Amino acid sequence: MKNAGCAGFEAAGIAAGIKKNGKKDLGILVSGVPATVAAVFTRNRVQAAPVLLDRERIKSGRCRAIVVNSGCANCCTGEQGMADAKAMAEFVAAELGINEDLVLVASTGVIGESLPMENIEAALPELVSTLTPQGIPELAEAIMTTDTVPKVVSRSGHLGGKSFTITGVAKGSGMIRPDMATMLCFVATDADIAANMLQRALAAGVDRSLNRITIDGDTSTNDMVILMAGGMSSVKIGDDSRMETFQQILDEVLIALARALVKDGEGVTKLVEIKINGAASDKDARQIADTVAHSNLLKTAFFGEDANWGRIIAAAGRAGVPMEVDRTDIFFNDVQMAKNGIGCGKIAEAGAGAVMKKDEFCIEMDLKMGIGSASVLTCDFSIDYVKINADYRS
Amino acid sequence: MKNAGCAGFEAAGIAAGIKKNGKKDLGILVSGVPATVAAVFTRNRVQAAPVLLDRERIKSGRCRAIVVNSGCANCCTGEQGMADAKAMAEFVAAELGINEDLVLVASTGVIGESLPMENIEAALPELVSTLTPQGIPELAEAIMTTDTVPKVVSRSGHLGGKSFTITGVAKGSGMIRPDMATMLCFVATDADIAANMLQRALAAGVDRSLNRITIDGDTSTNDMVILMAGGMSSVKIGDDSRMETFQQILDEVLIALARALVKDGEGVTKLVEIKINGAASDKDARQIADTVAHSNLLKTAFFGEDANWGRIIAAAGRAGVPMEVDRTDIFFNDVQMAKNGIGCGKIAEAGAGAVMKKDEFCIEMDLKMGIGSASVLTCDFSIDYVKINADYRS
Repeated sequence: MKNAGCAGFEAAGIAAGIKKNGKKDLGILVSGVPATVAAVFTRNRVQAAPVLLDRERIKSGRCRAIVVNSGCANCCTGEQGMADAKAMAEFVAAELGINEDLVLVASTGVIGESLPMENIEAALPELVSTLTPQGIPELAEAIMTTDTVPKVVSRSGHLGGKSFTITGVAKGSGMIRPDMATMLCFVATDADIAANMLQRALAAGVDRSLNRITIDGDTSTNDMVILMAGGMSSVKIGDDSRMETFQQILDEVLIALARALVKDGEGVTKLVEIKINGAASDKDARQIADTVAHSNLLKTAFFGEDANWGRIIAAAGRAGVPMEVDRTDIFFNDVQMAKNGIGCGKIAEAGAGAVMKKDEFCIEMDLKMGIGSASVLTCDFSIDYVKINADYRS
Repeated sequence: MKNAGCAGFEAAGIAAGIKKNGKKDLGILVSGVPATVAAVFTRNRVQAAPVLLDRERIKSGRCRAIVVNSGCANCCTGEQGMADAKAMAEFVAAELGINEDLVLVASTGVIGESLPMENIEAALPELVSTLTPQGIPELAEAIMTTDTVPKVVSRSGHLGGKSFTITGVAKGSGMIRPDMATMLCFVATDADIAANMLQRALAAGVDRSLNRITIDGDTSTNDMVILMAGGMSSVKIGDDSRMETFQQILDEVLIALARALVKDGEGVTKLVEIKINGAASDKDARQIADTVAHSNLLKTAFFGEDANWGRIIAAAGRAGVPMEVDRTDIFFNDVQMAKNGIGCGKIAEAGAGAVMKKDEFCIEMDLKMGIGSASVLTCDFSIDYVKINADYRS
């Protein structure tokens, strides 16, 4: 990951004393040139100050820098919270000598506590002075909360004999820490692309990646994904065929980050794909996939390596969309566990038991009602999840 | 509980060898006279054979007996499952010398396995021969799965100088074992009441009790609540004022059973009421209450006795109904933790911490948007929940 850079971008991450444990907690990503920008924000009705600020600033389609802290969500902090978010941007703008409206802000951590602005103000000059093209892994480290590893993904695409790069960082631990602002994701590209096309690509990419993972179904007050395009590669993404290539590379980056988030979810020991086929519509399939993926009963069975297909069919049955149990087939990888709603017996059970011992596997349901399909990534629900979340603030 | 009977009813419970551990697993409730009957069934799209059978039989509004087994849900068992459910009723009808259409059937246990009909058939004569007016606690024991205590509640009401009794049994362990058919509840009364009024009373009562509890949000393929009225008390429930008294006693029984289910939920150490006031409508309030009550993050915080109000507000924010964070107040019992979306500081935190050490407490939110309100009962989410559910079938 040492070479995970992106032409035209610099980044940094330092410890500013926001986290009590002395780890890195303040990061920055800067484009050397005015960049176009796209963003996707949490849909939670409770939104942290930086989310509210960025929603406004993103409208210009332009951005130069993102400054982000971990250890404090700056959420439920009232007017002071908004003033603090603006002040963070203002300090950064002053240090960089740019317009403060071109600086976005992100925070992650405990809800309901104010940012320690003295620490942040004191640390910002050092943060800016340590900016380097090799700094993206430092940024990835600075946004970690309960993540156990920093997450950086970089991919390159080729168009007209030239190459472009998309590099992203993300933090979780998946959806399992929504009150720690769960998911932040910052992506930089040296492709040259207009803001409206960038937004379209990001929305489509997120829908295929970060919106298809779940750890515990809670959503955060601070979630955001920001994509900046600086254009330094001189690869212009101007038509549909070039857009297709760009989208493909962007999807690869976002999907890899999404998988990394689930794998590093708190207490996670299993990465499980839930695949629904044969639903009446894609929407129905998605609803069943989400319901199955969120079932605590099923997730605890994953942890226990118990091929309890009854929990799968019972979860699907409460998804609120049409299904007929006596048509439904269930597979654990390639082992069929149920045919037309009836179990396939002891040999199948033994085969499925072997599948469940793997770190990654797939649960597939065929409803045989239509051609709708959907897939989501989920994980098991372990004793460590409870331990970590019970003891979180202490 | 030894006197928990109801005039005109007899019950029994024995071990028929359906459960591997040799505990009671076959029960029966019989009315000495033709009784009116009302029922509420699971809304899961996957429904066990006895649910499908009873839905038909209940239409007559008449019933003489309910036969129930634990240890096997008789769900996802195809045509054989329906034949087995019918056969259970037929054996009982023959033993009692009544019409088999007047016998209802219930099952609870693992999904996807067929009933051991030989065991059941062999045990039924003994079951019927042990019927006594004092047998209701035996029935309560025979329907237990992972419950740690049998649940029987009996209350009496007085009308026109005479008294009537309502006695109910239930099994859980709450919603946390939906694939074990979670919740069964059988209620007997010696009041004299028509089937349509009985159904109205049951639907209203369930809505205020068993539909207001949650342990893990999963719903079952086998849930049912059946209420039989034999009329032996000669207390006729014929007009609105008498209906009010009957409803009140019925509500008391159902609410007491509902609380008992949550308290005995797997791994449960805390019983928590979630009360939402000031929502735009009762429906909105209920949606927020349900979302908060199901939040794994919050439930693990309950287990950890952590007064993490940020998780409450974040859960409310994703309920999909209007709320404004900067109007929202949060209380832990009488300790205000947040005012207008901002935390009330260290003293409040200490007070709320003390509240959370109790076995039972109340979380109250005031949204200050309207007059809608709702209340649901939930519980904490403990390490034992994961352990029990991970190891369930092994």
